[in-house]
Amino acid sequence: MLTSLNNRRTIRKYQQKEVDNQTLTQLLETAFRASTTGNMQLYSVVVTKDAKMKEQLAPTHFNQPTFVNAPVALTFCADYNRFVKWCEQREAEPGYDNFLSFLNAAIDTMLVAQTFCVAAEGQGLGICYLGTTTYNARAIAKILDLPKLVVPITTITVGYPAEDPEQTDRLPADSLIHFEKYKDYTPADIDRIYANKENLKESKKFIAENNKKTLAQVYTDIRYKKADNEAFSQSMLDFLKEQGFMK
Amino acid sequence: MLTSLNNRRTIRKYQQKEVDNQTLTQLLETAFRASTTGNMQLYSVVVTKDAKMKEQLAPTHFNQPTFVNAPVALTFCADYNRFVKWCEQREAEPGYDNFLSFLNAAIDTMLVAQTFCVAAEGQGLGICYLGTTTYNARAIAKILDLPKLVVPITTITVGYPAEDPEQTDRLPADSLIHFEKYKDYTPADIDRIYANKENLKESKKFIAENNKKTLAQVYTDIRYKKADNEAFSQSMLDFLKEQGFMK
Repeated sequence: MLTSLNNRRTIRKYQQKEVDNQTLTQLLETAFRASTTGNMQLYSVVVTKDAKMKEQLAPTHFNQPTFVNAPVALTFCADYNRFVKWCEQREAEPGYDNFLSFLNAAIDTMLVAQTFCVAAEGQGLGICYLGTTTYNARAIAKILDLPKLVVPITTITVGYPAEDPEQTDRLPADSLIHFEKYKDYTPADIDRIYANKENLKESKKFIAENNKKTLAQVYTDIRYKKADNEAFSQSMLDFLKEQGFMK
Repeated sequence: MLTSLNNRRTIRKYQQKEVDNQTLTQLLETAFRASTTGNMQLYSVVVTKDAKMKEQLAPTHFNQPTFVNAPVALTFCADYNRFVKWCEQREAEPGYDNFLSFLNAAIDTMLVAQTFCVAAEGQGLGICYLGTTTYNARAIAKILDLPKLVVPITTITVGYPAEDPEQTDRLPADSLIHFEKYKDYTPADIDRIYANKENLKESKKFIAENNKKTLAQVYTDIRYKKADNEAFSQSMLDFLKEQGFMK
């Protein structure tokens, strides 16, 4: 299992081959074995295959080709709606309309999403996470008919791989692990940790293509900009309120 | 791999056998292959083995025996500190002091935590997630010396299993999967979905032990109470602000 986890790659191009519902359901059933807060299972998964639904959702994922061309997308949602309905039907007074409950449900949701990915990759499927879900949660919720106390957290595309990309780089593992206490990074540590990434051919290409001086500037000025992050933050906080999680 | 994922159990009792740092580092290195937002790797892991550190942390996890008796605990933290330091050292202006950036880092963190768990279980180790980390994030951060832009998201205990518990129940998979649109639950759906859980011997024992009428009341009145959730919500939101994530 370690070998398979160590060799994984994100797959963005898929064969034009359906992933049948039985396979999806079986993999999701496996994913639902993941740990869950108090065994409450605070999540739901919405499967998107229909061409019209994909067309509606595509702009919320910035029309990324990965999304547009994938045979299936799964939207993993933090869900207190089902649990609260159960409480109300059983003479119990739920107190889950708050931020902590949202956060716990989001954690539950991510455990399931990631277990699904490991299971799917183990069966020869490829997956790609779309970070766009937290940017456009409200629009996605509207299209998918999500009720109050349900918030989309992440979307993954799934399919049989039609590419075999190089594995991407990672920072040195020892720089991400702290023994007993967090050891903050000195300027020399930062230089050492990012040296390999900065020296990659792709990194130099990114810098040149974007007319930037450093790779970090590609992130701050092009890929993950302050103004966008601030707008999406406000929109997500407002949406959490609308969905009933910020009481 | 599916069989191993399907048969997993949370392990709360461990043998008095060390989990060596080489094994932990190797498993974490595997976990760091998980997908990550823009390959930014927005997380850090703090390893707790030292008896004095465990003693300090124990109250933040409500002195749960699982924590107190585990040979190792890992605290997985959302971390923008390292990335922002890199940006600042490279003439780039970071814009990550906001809620969306926190959420993306928390998602990255959970992917790594869960991949670690799958890898560890695949190697014969047992794990248990502690939900207490989001309750007491500030206190944990103080003990672990976490700087600004670092927030603990979850803690897992790890060790060689000293028990072989029954597998816990799960809701019917089809009730958690929605095709194309979210299908909201009718009262009859709720009755059907929770029937098996409510009929379990353990559930009936919980109800009787706690002098409640329904299992849902055990959750709302004993295990996950409104007043606690609200207090922890406020404390977490305040802490996110202190850590620099709510600008």
